[in-house]
Order: sequence, then structure tokens, then C-alpha cells
Amino acid sequence: MASLALGLDYGTNSVRGLVVDVSTGDELASAVFAYPSGEAGILLDPKDPHLARQNPSDYLKGFVAVARELGQSIDLRKVIGIGVDTTGSSPMPVKSDNSPLSDDLHFGANLHAHVWLWKDHTGFAEAAEITKRATEQNLPYLAKCGGTYSSEWFWSKLLRFARVAPDAFAATASWVEICDWIPAAICGVSDPFQIKRSRCAAGHKAMFEEEWGGLPSREFLASLDPRLSEFRNRLYDEVFMSDHPAGHLSEQFAELTGLNPGIPVAVGAFDAHFGAVASTAKPGTLVKIVGTSTCDCMVHSMDDPLPDVPGMCGIVKGSVLPGYFGLEAGQSAVGDIFNWVARITGRNHDDLNSEALNIAPGASGLLALDWHNGNRTILVDPMLSGLLVGLTLHTKPAEIYRACVEATAFGALRIIDRMEEYGVRVERVVACGGIADKSALTMQIYADVFNRPVSIAKSDQTCALGSAIFGAVVGGAYPEALSAQAKMAGVKDQVYQPDPHAVAIYGELYGLYCRLHDAFGIDANESHLFEVMKKLKSIQDRVHG
Amino acid sequence: MASLALGLDYGTNSVRGLVVDVSTGDELASAVFAYPSGEAGILLDPKDPHLARQNPSDYLKGFVAVARELGQSIDLRKVIGIGVDTTGSSPMPVKSDNSPLSDDLHFGANLHAHVWLWKDHTGFAEAAEITKRATEQNLPYLAKCGGTYSSEWFWSKLLRFARVAPDAFAATASWVEICDWIPAAICGVSDPFQIKRSRCAAGHKAMFEEEWGGLPSREFLASLDPRLSEFRNRLYDEVFMSDHPAGHLSEQFAELTGLNPGIPVAVGAFDAHFGAVASTAKPGTLVKIVGTSTCDCMVHSMDDPLPDVPGMCGIVKGSVLPGYFGLEAGQSAVGDIFNWVARITGRNHDDLNSEALNIAPGASGLLALDWHNGNRTILVDPMLSGLLVGLTLHTKPAEIYRACVEATAFGALRIIDRMEEYGVRVERVVACGGIADKSALTMQIYADVFNRPVSIAKSDQTCALGSAIFGAVVGGAYPEALSAQAKMAGVKDQVYQPDPHAVAIYGELYGLYCRLHDAFGIDANESHLFEVMKKLKSIQDRVHG
Repeated sequence: MASLALGLDYGTNSVRGLVVDVSTGDELASAVFAYPSGEAGILLDPKDPHLARQNPSDYLKGFVAVARELGQSIDLRKVIGIGVDTTGSSPMPVKSDNSPLSDDLHFGANLHAHVWLWKDHTGFAEAAEITKRATEQNLPYLAKCGGTYSSEWFWSKLLRFARVAPDAFAATASWVEICDWIPAAICGVSDPFQIKRSRCAAGHKAMFEEEWGGLPSREFLASLDPRLSEFRNRLYDEVFMSDHPAGHLSEQFAELTGLNPGIPVAVGAFDAHFGAVASTAKPGTLVKIVGTSTCDCMVHSMDDPLPDVPGMCGIVKGSVLPGYFGLEAGQSAVGDIFNWVARITGRNHDDLNSEALNIAPGASGLLALDWHNGNRTILVDPMLSGLLVGLTLHTKPAEIYRACVEATAFGALRIIDRMEEYGVRVERVVACGGIADKSALTMQIYADVFNRPVSIAKSDQTCALGSAIFGAVVGGAYPEALSAQAKMAGVKDQVYQPDPHAVAIYGELYGLYCRLHDAFGIDANESHLFEVMKKLKSIQDRVHG
Repeated sequence: MASLALGLDYGTNSVRGLVVDVSTGDELASAVFAYPSGEAGILLDPKDPHLARQNPSDYLKGFVAVARELGQSIDLRKVIGIGVDTTGSSPMPVKSDNSPLSDDLHFGANLHAHVWLWKDHTGFAEAAEITKRATEQNLPYLAKCGGTYSSEWFWSKLLRFARVAPDAFAATASWVEICDWIPAAICGVSDPFQIKRSRCAAGHKAMFEEEWGGLPSREFLASLDPRLSEFRNRLYDEVFMSDHPAGHLSEQFAELTGLNPGIPVAVGAFDAHFGAVASTAKPGTLVKIVGTSTCDCMVHSMDDPLPDVPGMCGIVKGSVLPGYFGLEAGQSAVGDIFNWVARITGRNHDDLNSEALNIAPGASGLLALDWHNGNRTILVDPMLSGLLVGLTLHTKPAEIYRACVEATAFGALRIIDRMEEYGVRVERVVACGGIADKSALTMQIYADVFNRPVSIAKSDQTCALGSAIFGAVVGGAYPEALSAQAKMAGVKDQVYQPDPHAVAIYGELYGLYCRLHDAFGIDANESHLFEVMKKLKSIQDRVHG
């Protein structure tokens, strides 16, 4: 009788439960539960487009719902361990009994007392303040995350919370990422200081690094807000990898779900990192999760030296696989740009895709910059914008579509080049996510532009599979994560191989892409173009008042 | 009983006849005749997309046809003079009796023996050769036409004719612009050396300038082809303005049309220049003929010094108005770009126009370069291409449309600035042509970007009205052109006035436009972007093989 593992993948709008065979990684059953609160699971404020919150009770309801549905076709008593991945940075305030502050009737109507979802940008001013203070105090905290702290991250949100909801802040015992809170909650952990915090979340979003003594110093936090300095004591000094159990399933949740009580639950992590594990991430293999945007994950042995790589979103020891540095990078928009082309041309993707397939590399004379939503890696600059050059009176919609696909490939190659400059070899790429599965056009262009083979992850729910892999590890099916990954993760048979003719043309076009990239993206003295995109945005902001 | 003048406007596809009252310029009747030969009047070669020829007999048939139609509602015996404007440079070979070589049965089937229409580009290699030879011999011939000789012009076409059709060339007595040939033909001039050649055509297209002794030297022509040197003797040494009669209507054509025999016919000129006269061209007033592309005409007193203005298409004494330098400039694409936006977005102009009207200056965050068909003035570079920057995931079709309208305005302002740098004041702009009449959006943007009032010519057939004005002058209704223009030309009451708020925003955007313009358009050492557009085109050419 095969042993099973359960992966729980908490996305932006729903949670997916996936049951897999621990010996093969075969996916036996899955179930999805849409969060009932707010709009598609997101609590919004009509007066503030930057605000995006969630109700933490949806997560627990979701766990029970997907488990019960899975239990209809699967014998859940065979499940030996559970893994949990979530969006992030999505922190929430908890009380001293580890219950959500939003469950307290005093604060139940206060949106600030809920989960601050990853895409909440209300802390943009606080993020800029954190970057400014760290830079002017010459502190190393931003060296691992590209030099700029984001409004999406842990401390921006906590500082904003303290300022905008001081009463709720005062009633808060701790501030917890949901990837840490959910495992603790289903294991019945009733003290926030007993939560096993994720190394992945702490390192990538909270500036946690042993080099400088864990979280940022009290002095630094005091320079932002005295309350933050005091709050540091309510956080954590130790972090854990996901091959470590966060706890064991509580009697209460075992009874609610039909799972065995006491089975181990792995320390949580972010979805993309588990997705990378399930996409066969290893040294030399870059995993790209390609959807509306991308998350790029790479590992590098901790036995090899690794300098800070400028522009990465994060470099964190053990954040993806134990024993390896986890490197995270990203492109701010990929599928979103393709959707935009479809929208402005009034055409559908299928037609654009099939017409674009018939256009040879270089034939359109077009070149684009893929910065419609700014540039995350390597420039870390949200104020950049998209560009199209080479337009003629004969330029057609499918040519613009293809040029935009190519631009995202060139942007991705710039990330690969940056990694290699700093000694991180990239020999092959594994893609997963919606576009990887659906667009052969995009994947062939990526192989040609990268001049590297591109494989597609076997699973189309890699995050949930990654969770199940860590469920199998803490459940004891494997001695450690690497051997579990070797058995349970994989890629499809079809590999996109670079075509030498296309490689040559794209080599020339990439040279031109880099000229545009550097002229508009880097503040070099001789360039008079660096300010153009920023000034356009500032004029636009002024006009909109 | 009012005296009348007849204006004949020979366009690309048809000829228009317009009868006006010489005392007021009021338009009493007009008639149009579509050229019967070829495709919409153009003889094409399916094997060579650069070739565009016309049948000169269509012009004479057209004169008779429009005159007869006009005679049905107008007493043509009241017509005291005729003016003629045509496209150009559109030269043709004639025999020693001034008859078209194409009327000779030996050459009737030879497309090269016909009119080489302005948009015939078969002489592109010859044009490059002329530019190269003039430049390497350090000759001044190109100083008045932007430094680059065009494939559309007189000598490129003659040199190409000699090379591609040596037999026809050998049988040719002279090479005549149709604006010179048509007046001569209807006046019965039977010797090509008696043709009164137009100063406008000679100066703008044939490098004729008294400074260097008229046409280019025999030595220079010999360096291109010995036959060209010999052919110089079959051309002309003297040129005339359109206030001068080319001759008097022949008995034959009087009988065919119902016009009085012996009435004077003015020396011909190019359509745009007569259009400028009818649009109240005078010092300080720039006339823009705005259609698929633009032709910009300006006059400057010959009493004031005028250096060569780099980038102009031509600077010719008396080419527009007697006593004034005529300056010609142009934008390679205007309405063509708006049509392109409509095409790639799948939207219609009316919707785009009305949505674009609701977008405030600067609100879209977009900026474009209007080089989809290259840049005529001031860069004289057909290898440039269009650019769009500031694109975001929210960018909408109407925003792109408005950004393209604004880009053509910025391109136009760059021409105005260039003129003013060299001492040619531009105080107001008068627009004519399809877009001037139809698009209030475009005209208001032009006024705001130029920070100058923009008026619209009274007539919607300004070229034909300009012809009629010169018909009135040679017919004796006025002592000279200026007083005829003062009475017969005019603008509409409505004037587009610059809005100070928009002027301020556009001032900032124009600064950014100039940065892009100079980075991509000027080969300065510090710019690495000048080659980008050219390399994209050369890769494209290579891929298309």
C-alpha cells in the first residue's frame, strides 16, 4: 500500500490540495477551494486601489474543505505528511494565543487587522523610507535583495500597520507570514513564539540573515519608528527549512479533515520556491515560473563562494533546497504584456500566436523593452516603462506580439547573464506555469534567445507538488529533500532545443536590446535617456493630480 | 460682369479644374477627371514595386474634359487666364517637336518612355550615386536640399532612364517636368527649347541655382555618366516664375475646350507651392499641407540674408512667391501614421478621435517618434523608424493614437525651430489638406505644441485655387502675385489658439521628444543608439533575403 503526501498550495484566490504517491510523485487527486471572503478572496477598499487584504479564517476553512473533498476518493489515513506553501510576503497580526487579530470582535471590522496580501502596496512610502534609511546608514540589509526594499514586503507592511492602525498594532502580539501561521494553526500551536518561522520568508522578505545577527538591528528599526524597535522582541531569532516539521496535525484538525492526528506538517514556504523544487531545481538549472509575471529560482551550492549578485530579489541560504543558496529573481510582466497586446489590437491570443509563429526572427524589424510594469531584475526599478522601436507603416499586430514575446526572452537572458557574471552557471532552463504549458511559440523563442535547452515541468501544479514533496520528507519517506525531489519531481519528454540560425539572429538583436536596456535603464552620465521614462511618469502623475 | 480665372490642378490620380472670380477668389465651379490609363492613372510594373509612370496624353484629355464640364455651368469666355500646377518631380522625355516620346509608336509600349511619376523610386541607386559624387567632389549642389539627393527627383530619374532604356534615351530631345510640359503643350509650343521652365521645379528638384551657374556643371554630370554631360545642352539655362506667361492658349485647345484662344497660361509649378500661396503664405506664416504626409512651405524676403538651412528639402529663390526665398520642408508620414494606429488597433478614426479628445496632455505617459516612414525634415534619413515609449499594461488604443498625433506635432515643431534658428520667423501656421479640415483634435494639438495660432485655409482645394490666382495674374487682373493673393486667398474664421496649460505640459514633453530625436536620429559619438534603427532594418533586409 503506497504512502501518500498532501500538498497545500495557498494561492491568491483559492487553495489547492494535492495528494501524491510519495514513491513516484504521481498525482492521485486534487481539490480546489475558493476563498469565500471579499472579491475572489480579496478584501478591497474602494477608496484605496493599493489595498489588498485577506481573511485568515478562509485558509483554515479551505484546508478542511479540500481535505474533505479529497477524502471522498482517497484514503486520507495513508497520508504520512503535509506540506504548505503560500503567497508572500503576506503577513498578519496575531494575538498572544496565536489567534488572528481579525477574529477579535474589537478589530473584526478593521481591514488593517487582517492579512496584508502580497500585492497590497499601501506601504509604498514606508518602503522608500526603509530603503533610504538603510542606504544612508550604510547598512548591508539590502545587499541580498537588489538594493531596494519593496512595498510588498514584511517591514513596509508592519511599519504602515503601526502608523495607520495604532490601536490594532498595540493589541498585536506578533506579525506572522501566512506560510508560518497556517502550519502552526493546523498543528494547534497556541503561542506565537513557538511558531517555526520559514527561512525562505524571513530571508527573502524580512531582511533576516545570520551574517548581521538575524533581523535588522533595534537601532535601525528605531530610526524608522520607536515602536518597531520595541516590536523586534515579538518576532524571532531563529528560522527553519521546510525539511523540518513545523509541528504535528492537531486532534481538532484531524477530526475535521479525516487525516491522521499527529502526522508531521512541514515548515511552510513561498509557492514559487516549492514550485522550483518540483521543477527539478538544481545547480545549473534555472527554473522560471512563467505566468502574468515570472519568478525565477536558482540554487547554488553553499560550498562555493557566492558574492552578492546585484539586482536579485533575494539570495537566501537554504530558501529553496537545504545546503544551497536560493536565488530569486523576477520579471515584472510577461503574460500580462501578451494580454496587453491582445487587448490593444483587439485580437485573440490564438490568432496572434499562430500568425507570430510564421514570422522569422528579425523579420519584423521590431525590438521592444518588456518594462510595461517596470523592471524587477536586474534593474529593480518600478518607474521604467515599455518601449517599441522599429515601427513602420507596415507593422502588424502579430509582429508586435512576437516582438513582445522576444523582449521578455531578452529580459530573461539579461537575468541569466547577470547570474553567470557572478559565477552562477545556467546550463538549462525549466519552465512551469500557464505560459510554459500553453505557448510553444514562447518556449521556442526562449530556447533560441537563451541558446540553451528549455524543458517544461512534468506537473502543471508544481507548487502543490513541491508542498507534497516536503510533506513526504517530514513524513519520513525520504532522509532529506534532494532524494525526495529526485524521485518525485520531473520534466516532460519534449525539450525545446535552440535552432542555430535563430540563435545567430537573436544574438544580434540581443546586442541592440542591451543598448536600449542600458540607455533607458541605467543612470550613466553620458546617457540623456535615463530620465525620459521617469519624467513621463511624473508628468502623468501631476496631470492626474 | 466678373472676370474669371481657371486653375488646373494635376494630382496623382486625377486633374481638377476650378473656376474662380478673380476679384474675390470665390469658387464658382469645379470638375474632376480621373486619368484613364493604368491603375487609377498610374502605370505599374508587377515585377518592380518601385516603378510608377503616367501617360502624358491623360493630361491633355483631362484638360479638355474638365473644361467642357465646367462650360456647362460657366461662361468660359469670361476666363482671362489659366494657371497649372502638378505633382513633381515628374519628368518625361519629349521629342524635338515637343511631343511625348511615348506617343512615338517605336516607344509606345516602353514604360520608360512615359512620365516618371513623383513616387517612382526606381532611381534609388542613382540618387545615392549623385549624393556620393557631389559630396566627395565637395560641390555645393546639395546645400539647398538637405544634403541628400532623392530618388524621386529629376536627375536620378534621368540617369536611371539613360541606363535602363538607352535606345529611348538616345531618341529623346529633352527631359521636361510635367508642370513645364502641360502649359507648353496647351499653348502649342512645338520646340522643347522654347518651353518656359519653372523656377520652382528647377530649383527644388534639379539643383538649379544661379549661384553656381544654373544646372550642375558638365564636369559633375560627366562624373556620373558621359551621356548626362552631353544631355545638359538639351535642357535649359533660364527659369521663370509663375507670374510669367508660359504662352497663350492655342487655337486647337481653344476650340476643343470653349475657352478663348490666346488667353495667357502661367508658367507651371508644383501643387504644394500653389497651395501655399492660396493658404496666405507670407513672411512669418508657415503653411502646412497636412495629408498622408506633409509638405511645409515658407517664404522669406530676398532682401534679408538667408544662410543654407540644414535639413530643408529645398530653398529656392521665387519658387513660391516672386521676391521671396521659397523654403520647402516635409514630414514623411502624418495621416499615414494615424491610419496605421487605426489598422493595428482594429478601431475606426472617429472613435479614436473622440476618445483621444478626452485625454489630457501628458495624461497617458506616452511619447512617440513619428518616423514610421523615415524622417524627411530635419534629419533627411529614410532608414529611421517609429518608436513608442511609456507603455504600461494600462495603455489604451486612443492613448497611442493621441501620442502619435502629438509626435507629428513635435516633429513639426522641430522644423519650425530649425527655421527660426536660421532667422526665418514663424509667427503663425496655416494648415490645409484633408486632416486640417477634418481633425479638430490634431489642429488643437498643433496649436498647443507650436504655441502659435493655427488657422485653416478657406478653400478645401487650395492647389487649384493657387493655380487660379496665377491665372488671374497672367490674365492681367492684378499687377503682381501678392496683390492677387491678398484678394483671392484667405483662411477660415475659426482659429485654433494655444491653451496655456497645454502649452506648458507640451513644452516639457517636447524636451523629452528632442532627447529621443537626437539620440536615435543624430550620429553623435556619445550615443550608442543611432545605429539601432538602422541595424534593425539591415537585419530585416537580410532575413527577407
